Amino acid sequence: MYDLLIIGAGPAGLSAAVYGRRAGLNLAVIEQTPMSGGQVLNTYEVDNYLGMPGINGFDLGTKFREHAQKMGAVFLREKVTAIHDQGQSKTVETASGTAYEAKSLILATGAEHALLQVPGEQELKGRGVSYCATCDGAFFRGRDVAVVGGGDVAVEDAVYLSRMCRKVYLIHRRDSLRAAKILQDKLFACENVEICWNCTVSKINGDDLVEGVTLYHKQEKQEKDLAVEGVFIAVGMHPGTEAFAAAAACDEKGYLIAGEDCATNLPGVFAAGDIRTKPLRQIVTAVADGACAVTSVEQYLTGM
Amino acid sequence: MYDLLIIGAGPAGLSAAVYGRRAGLNLAVIEQTPMSGGQVLNTYEVDNYLGMPGINGFDLGTKFREHAQKMGAVFLREKVTAIHDQGQSKTVETASGTAYEAKSLILATGAEHALLQVPGEQELKGRGVSYCATCDGAFFRGRDVAVVGGGDVAVEDAVYLSRMCRKVYLIHRRDSLRAAKILQDKLFACENVEICWNCTVSKINGDDLVEGVTLYHKQEKQEKDLAVEGVFIAVGMHPGTEAFAAAAACDEKGYLIAGEDCATNLPGVFAAGDIRTKPLRQIVTAVADGACAVTSVEQYLTGM
Repeated sequence: MYDLLIIGAGPAGLSAAVYGRRAGLNLAVIEQTPMSGGQVLNTYEVDNYLGMPGINGFDLGTKFREHAQKMGAVFLREKVTAIHDQGQSKTVETASGTAYEAKSLILATGAEHALLQVPGEQELKGRGVSYCATCDGAFFRGRDVAVVGGGDVAVEDAVYLSRMCRKVYLIHRRDSLRAAKILQDKLFACENVEICWNCTVSKINGDDLVEGVTLYHKQEKQEKDLAVEGVFIAVGMHPGTEAFAAAAACDEKGYLIAGEDCATNLPGVFAAGDIRTKPLRQIVTAVADGACAVTSVEQYLTGM
Repeated sequence: MYDLLIIGAGPAGLSAAVYGRRAGLNLAVIEQTPMSGGQVLNTYEVDNYLGMPGINGFDLGTKFREHAQKMGAVFLREKVTAIHDQGQSKTVETASGTAYEAKSLILATGAEHALLQVPGEQELKGRGVSYCATCDGAFFRGRDVAVVGGGDVAVEDAVYLSRMCRKVYLIHRRDSLRAAKILQDKLFACENVEICWNCTVSKINGDDLVEGVTLYHKQEKQEKDLAVEGVFIAVGMHPGTEAFAAAAACDEKGYLIAGEDCATNLPGVFAAGDIRTKPLRQIVTAVADGACAVTSVEQYLTGM
């Protein structure tokens, strides 16, 4: 019986491992792949983790993991299929058939950005294709970029990017936006934003770096090329809550409902990082969650 | 007129500067001393900032500052005496007489641990004297330590330390604890905790590192020496809100009332880091606040 099992080895899970080990807890981190580390590992450059400007995502993820290992964190390679809350003990079921028991759980399996699933997207990820304007916008200062999507995030991204980029194209498949009215008003007031209505992206072009996108206009039924150096894809996110949704309360988008203390509706089960309902999904907020979740675990174990 | 003025140059303020500059905001950081950086700079070793195990506090604070400078943050050396909210613009008054105007403010002047004010305390800070069990407890694995105080934090610290230290003395000046009943029950159940009732600390002993404390028993009216390698002082905190308390809402302890989005009761004024009401005051949670506060600033500016 572990004091704590941490499911997921991204910034939230690894931060929880560091705080948990330093607190003297008997814990293990369950990860699905041998070298996990969340979205960070696949990020070309991270420039907003305070103290490490311009670090390669793989290097940062590796440092995170080494820190947890240095503190004595044990890693179990398993795919978690379900969790069960029996009060004083929680069971974690895995695809291998092995079940693990712990007094408390931290769920930290993150979230994935939805993909456009067009040619060029995977190949040019981190080379002009981005899923986070807050993270990567600053790399495109003075350049032309495209944002794909029509919801709040896409419109916020376009407004955000308009302050630093020369020209921003917002590519949307419909003839109206889903985003909140106040955001739309702000968008329409941006002089350097042009909206490509009724357009989908057929492919993202470029050899080593993004050079443009090919759009398909649904009514004119024809393609046209747009020269841009960055493509920000904002077509939704998928929280990694499949294994937990039957046990713990999620919001309508699938995120685990938890506040700053990371407490879910199940006593002793905590949600840290991108997986929970929160105002900002960033490496630094995931790392903070790992610390807060362990503090909540300690309070829970103290009260047991 | 700045888009944003950040008051305070600790982890929260510097993280806000990085996020704000990357968001293209016209901002400045106001700091009271030429080399500020909050409590971090005076920390001997920081072992829980993910990715940088075992870093010296001064080095970490320096890296934080360099990151903000690299992003183009401007620093103003001023002591802030008051803020005024005129709606669309906010005024920051300073001791030099210069006033600054901004559309939004992030208040990030942190908090200070209350001192015992006994001989040896300043000299041995970071050399056995600590104000944070979560931060420094792991350095005292298998050693004997003392905790000074009688409130929730002191008792939580004693329970926390009992899991990793050989022996924990809780030194309290009264004959009963102020801490919550559930915490007291937990404390009394710890076999390696001994409570020194009715005792005050007269001095902290040691040359280069803490070797012990001298206690004064108020009823027996005599001193005795206790051999410990660590002294955790938990006698309260003072948030740095003097200049803001007239303008923004604070709780009964003086912290600015703000949630995870860092919004205070004043639109356009945000509180980040140790200065706000929050469950856990750590470097990582301060850094996260800097990012969240800037996101809230952007939403505020978008809605203006």
